[in-house]
Amino acid sequence: MSRERYYHLLVNFEASAPRSCGARPLRAMFASIMPRSYLDPPMPITALATPLGRSALAVIRAGGPGAIDLASRCFSRPGALRKASGGRFLVGAFLDASSKEIIDEAVVSIFRAPKSPTGEDLVEFSFHGSQAVIRRALEVLIAAGFAPALPGEFSFRAFLSGKTDLIEAEAIDEIARAGTEGARAEALRRLEGGLSHRIVHARGELLELLAEAEVRLDYAEEDGAPSDAVPPAALNRVRDSLAALAATYRTGRLYRDGLRAVLSGRPNAGKSSLFNLLLREERSIVSPEPGTTRDWIEAAVELGGVELRLIDTAGLREAREAVEAEGVERSRRLLAEADIAIHLVDARIGLSGEDQAIFDSIPAAIRVWNKVDAADARPVPAGFLGLSASTGEGFPAFAASLESRITELLGREERKPESAGGEARAIRTEALVASERQKALLDRAVRALESAASAAESGAGLDAVSVDLRDAADALGEITGEISSPEILEAIFSRFCLGK
Amino acid sequence: MSRERYYHLLVNFEASAPRSCGARPLRAMFASIMPRSYLDPPMPITALATPLGRSALAVIRAGGPGAIDLASRCFSRPGALRKASGGRFLVGAFLDASSKEIIDEAVVSIFRAPKSPTGEDLVEFSFHGSQAVIRRALEVLIAAGFAPALPGEFSFRAFLSGKTDLIEAEAIDEIARAGTEGARAEALRRLEGGLSHRIVHARGELLELLAEAEVRLDYAEEDGAPSDAVPPAALNRVRDSLAALAATYRTGRLYRDGLRAVLSGRPNAGKSSLFNLLLREERSIVSPEPGTTRDWIEAAVELGGVELRLIDTAGLREAREAVEAEGVERSRRLLAEADIAIHLVDARIGLSGEDQAIFDSIPAAIRVWNKVDAADARPVPAGFLGLSASTGEGFPAFAASLESRITELLGREERKPESAGGEARAIRTEALVASERQKALLDRAVRALESAASAAESGAGLDAVSVDLRDAADALGEITGEISSPEILEAIFSRFCLGK
Repeated sequence: MSRERYYHLLVNFEASAPRSCGARPLRAMFASIMPRSYLDPPMPITALATPLGRSALAVIRAGGPGAIDLASRCFSRPGALRKASGGRFLVGAFLDASSKEIIDEAVVSIFRAPKSPTGEDLVEFSFHGSQAVIRRALEVLIAAGFAPALPGEFSFRAFLSGKTDLIEAEAIDEIARAGTEGARAEALRRLEGGLSHRIVHARGELLELLAEAEVRLDYAEEDGAPSDAVPPAALNRVRDSLAALAATYRTGRLYRDGLRAVLSGRPNAGKSSLFNLLLREERSIVSPEPGTTRDWIEAAVELGGVELRLIDTAGLREAREAVEAEGVERSRRLLAEADIAIHLVDARIGLSGEDQAIFDSIPAAIRVWNKVDAADARPVPAGFLGLSASTGEGFPAFAASLESRITELLGREERKPESAGGEARAIRTEALVASERQKALLDRAVRALESAASAAESGAGLDAVSVDLRDAADALGEITGEISSPEILEAIFSRFCLGK
Repeated sequence: MSRERYYHLLVNFEASAPRSCGARPLRAMFASIMPRSYLDPPMPITALATPLGRSALAVIRAGGPGAIDLASRCFSRPGALRKASGGRFLVGAFLDASSKEIIDEAVVSIFRAPKSPTGEDLVEFSFHGSQAVIRRALEVLIAAGFAPALPGEFSFRAFLSGKTDLIEAEAIDEIARAGTEGARAEALRRLEGGLSHRIVHARGELLELLAEAEVRLDYAEEDGAPSDAVPPAALNRVRDSLAALAATYRTGRLYRDGLRAVLSGRPNAGKSSLFNLLLREERSIVSPEPGTTRDWIEAAVELGGVELRLIDTAGLREAREAVEAEGVERSRRLLAEADIAIHLVDARIGLSGEDQAIFDSIPAAIRVWNKVDAADARPVPAGFLGLSASTGEGFPAFAASLESRITELLGREERKPESAGGEARAIRTEALVASERQKALLDRAVRALESAASAAESGAGLDAVSVDLRDAADALGEITGEISSPEILEAIFSRFCLGK
């Protein structure tokens, strides 16, 4: 399969699923077709950096060794482009280097190494946002000598050239995926280096302890004297700091991936009305992950800065009418697994045994007494929120209750009203851990330090302690990418968006 | 409804239908909510210029009087931004002007009036391509004093400042909509001014004739002598040139909107297999116009540089099994209305009376003898293309026959093989008319000139001829926008993409 064909397939694939960053299997297929790897010697690469679709502008990136010279062959003002200093852009025409046919008007921005996002020479062509222009321009650039970039390859080069560490590279990808204010702000905090700084600092301390231990080992060998142990207090301090960081993972993940709220209730309790009311009243989010949507997830809204994925159990129950008991059991399981459970009772009918069973097994469920506007509605019992999902009566109190549940889950203490959107947002300067990879490595470091401390306390030799210290330091090095294997890097960057 | 709310709705709307340029009703609704018009005094405006979706980059435009100063309040290097000359870009952080919270890293490109795409000061912020960043950044810019741009408002300002005429503004919008090479190349040709030049030239000739006629009228009044008539030869020359231009509309429209190919055949003749084969072998196009797709249109491919919309009549027939006669009649009507009709016959069964009836009524239909790979296939009759839609046997000849039919319809004489995609493309320098608006105005000018010529020939007074000449010149002036009413301009630009 030719490069052009590969790229054409990839572009079409991206086009048919514009929000497809997460679509792994097809990417893996393309990767197997494409005889290139992230670790090949650097060559000029190109990719569309904006979503494929009809719009005012589309941006194509082209970077790598010789990129400016190659790009100049596709530009109406080649001399000006070759001579242009970084930080400038030129207006001209983008043309087929061989036929000289003009493809579109274009603005080209010039980034010169090393002051570029990737550390290499880089240009960004800004075109009219047309599918036909994008396809043709990519073909022209590929014919001129640019290879189609692998997903995340620009970020990979920024990492290789030391522009970012792994934490920051992952944060950039997270920003692109962010659907809510909270996800964006948390990812930005990681990008700004807060997390990297803590990891690098902790690793520095460990390396210092290790160096000291090794000096003592050498000395002990020469001397024949038993070596002093590594001070357990120092080990425990670093361990505690890393454990505290690892403990932020739960919150970090909630910011990144959002919360699941399950709506349950007997048929006609008004689940769908409440659903629609939430969508109308709160900022709805375009589902950022196609393919992961399951039948019963119907929508997502942004509440308190995080994504709240609303799950209606109605479909579930109706599909299983024949085996009602199983349906109820399934609802209960969904409720139990949810971050937030909401159970609706029809105010005209009142509490059934089934409702009571739900509340008994999920005491944290938000209890909603729906249809309070009905003429025959019974009074709202204690512990219930009165609501009319159809008129909106009682909605503000319900939304406030949802928000306070979210705040609780995020463990936020400080909240500050904010001017722009009128939303409240937490003010925090410390970065959270949101990546499973980072969490797993932090856990490994903590375990190694525990083992080092107990070895030190039990009077084991310095060598034993050193091995654990080295393991902990290596785990931290893997988090920032100072220590990394090609396989790990490939796995990380191949999950990124194309053009990133 | 507040500006912010309006914009939030609009952004969400665009997000849920990213290729929504054509979605008029909702836009009209927004326009009625939004108390702004294209003709209000110019104020700073902002809009997302790239499609909303997860990607490496997203670009937000902000332009108008004071735009650079306003934008500098949302940038970490306000002084540098205010002082920067046009043609430069700066790297920094985009921040909330009031809270100083950093929203994202950003690159800002500076265009200074009058050397900018709109003729006004303009900046383009390039962000990480995140929904959360885009929404927040737009909120921040709106809070800083930018109004949400109306669809096409940047183009409208370029028109107002004389950067483009109406033909060119329409061409830019067409480029964004272009799904095929042909549509792109034709729109670019119009953008490059080929069409504008011809119209302006013809209008100049008419205005000269008109001026001459008016001088003679004045002279005749003073003199009392009968005025000389306008020379009919001059009128006819301009009329012929405009009529020739109007006649390019059919081809221009085919390039812009594509061709309809209808596939018919008895049940099990292999229509769906041929469909899938075409989609596999040819470049498939993401449908550029949601909402216009009717049940029986299943896909579109690019062939010979134009969009070929494939229509399978299978569903039609099966849905109407009960009234088979009506189904057949409907198929025949679809075939007759198609730009290209393709009728399949099952080689194992041979020609039925029904097939023969189709060929009799649509003699131009491409005749396909399908399933030639079957053991019991009958030999291919004269005038038929032998094909196996399941194995692909005979496909190249079928595709060539389709392409030659397309070439015929486009009326292309010259064809040149091309290096990049291996496709053939027509080489033509004259621009075609593709807009209904332009065509209608050309027709009006031609009719007015015909009336002028016959008035001149019948010896009618110079005044009568002058009225027609003036009408023809005005029609041409409306094409380029030299003469235009606010309603017409509003109608044209409101169809454009947001951010354009």
